[in-house]
Amino acid sequence: MEDQLSTTFAALADPTRRAILAKLSLGETSVTELARPFEMSMPAITKHLKVLEKAGLISRSREAQWRPCKLEAAPLEEVAGWVEDYRRFWAESFDRLDIYLAKIQAEGKKGKDSTKRKH
Amino acid sequence: MEDQLSTTFAALADPTRRAILAKLSLGETSVTELARPFEMSMPAITKHLKVLEKAGLISRSREAQWRPCKLEAAPLEEVAGWVEDYRRFWAESFDRLDIYLAKIQAEGKKGKDSTKRKH
Repeated sequence: MEDQLSTTFAALADPTRRAILAKLSLGETSVTELARPFEMSMPAITKHLKVLEKAGLISRSREAQWRPCKLEAAPLEEVAGWVEDYRRFWAESFDRLDIYLAKIQAEGKKGKDSTKRKH
Repeated sequence: MEDQLSTTFAALADPTRRAILAKLSLGETSVTELARPFEMSMPAITKHLKVLEKAGLISRSREAQWRPCKLEAAPLEEVAGWVEDYRRFWAESFDRLDIYLAKIQAEGKKGKDSTKRKH
């Protein structure tokens, strides 16, 4: 019932699952190899992999006997497309910060100038 | 205890909450106005707003009496930064698709040529 984007976001809402994706971005890896850096039981890792697989973020090859995991980037492209629509908002925040910094810089300079005049 | 990125992704994993952000991208809005397009009780909407507020995705003004909601884009910028690292993966997929399409197009042309020769 869940829409793809909600499923993707829910799958990404966990630091271990994001770390698994980061590791897979370096290349196909076996489950044993994937589990190594995490202090986790194999069932716990398998559970995370199932969430990622259900969201289409990874796939497991059926060709090789060691069934390597592979990163699938299509759902991430959807995330990038979604977040792109909001880019102007943080760009605007930076513009406002620039204006603010320029203003306090100008005021600071004015302050100094008036101090000079007093002397 | 949760990291910011996990909190953000969890908040985004709901179509109603994403629709609220989309509406706020058009400007500050009262809660009543926000609730209008959704067939939801006010407590249900308030619950969604609390999730978004906790994730820092919206803020509520304390100045005006109608306490308008406002989109806060900083967590979305973090999402964009995170997903950007994976861009090359979907770019690569497109490259592979291009190569594949060029190949079947070339093969299709060869096929036609050999049919012609038979006649």
